[in-house]
Amino acid sequence: MHAQPRVAIRYCIQCRWLLRAAWYAQELLTSLETELGEVALAPGTGGVFEVYVGEDLIWSRAERGRFPDIKELKQLVRDHVAPGQSLGHTDRAAQHSEPNDNA
Amino acid sequence: MHAQPRVAIRYCIQCRWLLRAAWYAQELLTSLETELGEVALAPGTGGVFEVYVGEDLIWSRAERGRFPDIKELKQLVRDHVAPGQSLGHTDRAAQHSEPNDNA
Repeated sequence: MHAQPRVAIRYCIQCRWLLRAAWYAQELLTSLETELGEVALAPGTGGVFEVYVGEDLIWSRAERGRFPDIKELKQLVRDHVAPGQSLGHTDRAAQHSEPNDNA
Repeated sequence: MHAQPRVAIRYCIQCRWLLRAAWYAQELLTSLETELGEVALAPGTGGVFEVYVGEDLIWSRAERGRFPDIKELKQLVRDHVAPGQSLGHTDRAAQHSEPNDNA
């Protein structure tokens, strides 16, 4: 159904992280709408929060100890699916501040 | 990555239907969180608005001429993935009104 890259966000339903996952999905689909085949929201349990691009795990809350900032998530996904593409404001802001300054 | 049923919503980016698609996705994931493997948001063009359960097309705006009401969408998906399960309020409301009364 899709030849372009797929992003999947697996979130813990017990932690009520659907709203956060859906927000991330909409941000990614807005910034990378022509580069992504789809963004999937996948319910999980046990505190899981993971983001995949294709088969690659690009974010694990268990490993990192925190959620991604929206701009670092966009940059991570962009680096996988369209390495040369500018994210505009998001990239410019990153040059002037720490990547996690509004987490 | 998922053995449970997959829902996919393909929406037209030119029509700016992402917000509607994301709302539907969150409603489905809230009502059927333990029955669905994932709900995917897939950008498309040309006025497309389609909902799939697995490979089955359960809603096409081109065919039906309108978007689904949220309760009829939940019932259609439920009928595919968990036919015996009550949707509570959504099912009770459907007994007292036309399925499209708040479309």
